[in-house]
Amino acid sequence: MTFLTDPYRIYVYDTDAAGVVHHSNYLRYFEAGRIEFLRSIGYPYIDFQNQGIGFVPIDIQIKYKKPLREDDLYQVSAYPTLVKKASFQFKQAIIVNEEEIVSGTIMLACVKEPEFKPQPTTQPFREALIKAIPPTP
Amino acid sequence: MTFLTDPYRIYVYDTDAAGVVHHSNYLRYFEAGRIEFLRSIGYPYIDFQNQGIGFVPIDIQIKYKKPLREDDLYQVSAYPTLVKKASFQFKQAIIVNEEEIVSGTIMLACVKEPEFKPQPTTQPFREALIKAIPPTP
Amino acid sequence: MTFLTDPYRIYVYDTDAAGVVHHSNYLRYFEAGRIEFLRSIGYPYIDFQNQGIGFVPIDIQIKYKKPLREDDLYQVSAYPTLVKKASFQFKQAIIVNEEEIVSGTIMLACVKEPEFKPQPTTQPFREALIKAIPPTP
Amino acid sequence: MTFLTDPYRIYVYDTDAAGVVHHSNYLRYFEAGRIEFLRSIGYPYIDFQNQGIGFVPIDIQIKYKKPLREDDLYQVSAYPTLVKKASFQFKQAIIVNEEEIVSGTIMLACVKEPEFKPQPTTQPFREALIKAIPPTP
Repeated sequence: MTFLTDPYRIYVYDTDAAGVVHHSNYLRYFEAGRIEFLRSIGYPYIDFQNQGIGFVPIDIQIKYKKPLREDDLYQVSAYPTLVKKASFQFKQAIIVNEEEIVSGTIMLACVKEPEFKPQPTTQPFREALIKAIPPTP
Repeated sequence: MTFLTDPYRIYVYDTDAAGVVHHSNYLRYFEAGRIEFLRSIGYPYIDFQNQGIGFVPIDIQIKYKKPLREDDLYQVSAYPTLVKKASFQFKQAIIVNEEEIVSGTIMLACVKEPEFKPQPTTQPFREALIKAIPPTP
Repeated sequence: MTFLTDPYRIYVYDTDAAGVVHHSNYLRYFEAGRIEFLRSIGYPYIDFQNQGIGFVPIDIQIKYKKPLREDDLYQVSAYPTLVKKASFQFKQAIIVNEEEIVSGTIMLACVKEPEFKPQPTTQPFREALIKAIPPTP
Repeated sequence: MTFLTDPYRIYVYDTDAAGVVHHSNYLRYFEAGRIEFLRSIGYPYIDFQNQGIGFVPIDIQIKYKKPLREDDLYQVSAYPTLVKKASFQFKQAIIVNEEEIVSGTIMLACVKEPEFKPQPTTQPFREALIKAIPPTP
């Protein structure tokens, strides 16, 4: 029920000498997942960017359970868990065969670029995010 | 007193369209900092790698305070905070003009590559790490 | 008629402070395109890799006509132009709206990894490559 | 006599599953080398960037002779070979123990960013570049 991207493929340039995806790259896949999530709720990130607005990570926690390897396919999940005036939090995961192999909690601030000054989000956008928070089980 | 790398320079390829270093790259700078720390205590990481041993992140927390920009100089700090049989924890920061602009806590597992099986570290290495834990103030 | 990948999306991490995709990244997109081309002719690159065989660039020429930007969609074309015993050449392009915005000629050597010793390709593979060379107009 | 950077170290994140530096990364090292060359002749690239001026590759040829691996040290050479009104060409190499292991010829256009419109360079800058062209032997 939570948002899941189409599958992405791992290419050689994603991997490192240990034969697995370099651990920094998962933050990039998470970002791609958030951008596709925003598109799915009708708020393409590029529209914010064209107005000089960015959502920048201020606090990330990431847990690595299993590595991805060359030619693997993965999907990225993304949903908001907390929505404030000028910041919000996502939970995300890298999914392979319905298994979470990497998971993360990402707190993002809404800022005016390139100065990086805090910028409140609009109420409709906040409501769209709040609507996407999964019900507590 | 804690370990600090020589200064590194930010180049264009480190930055993104927001005009700042992409947030994923700080995990790469942290890794470089840990590798230089290991060299400084007499345990070059390449010696482990040549024996098929790797230290892989299993849990990372990272806080972003200020961004780095094109042509900035930065240093990376690194010191262990916890040493177990087959894992250990580092605290690290990106330092500009003696100010921490990004900080992180990284838990690493010692593994046999490329299978990624847990591998206990040697006692002399553990003792060298423990010796580098800063005294609690 | 020549091979074309499915569309890929440009994300923030692909871009640099100039607001466009960093010029080094097109070599990565070319590599992804070659890997998908090989899959399309029945020779997945991962099968070579699992036998310790790699195809490594030895000579690349690349021309940049227009930049890609955040959120752009692009496709990658790939076809062989020359097939030798232990090396072959590809022509590739980055395609947006049927327009070539970046183009390249890539000479690759077949090698045994990790020593990088030249390794002749098999005759069936060479024949499959030769079959994919477009007819001269 | 031609410009050579200080040594840089290869870290894990520079490498790929083949155990060597990914071939796209050498374009990044070349860029770093050009930026340090410009600083060395008194024209720091950041000063151009702060005025919205960029030097963007339009044509690159690169030859790979030997790969770099984890923990290797390398230097980057850079010198101009051709200077036009709004473009110039560099020859560059990756140097290990005085041996060229990767070499490239890079044609760059001077542009106004972010529109990427051609922009003539100033005469003093062109003269500084011309002065740095090595004498033909």
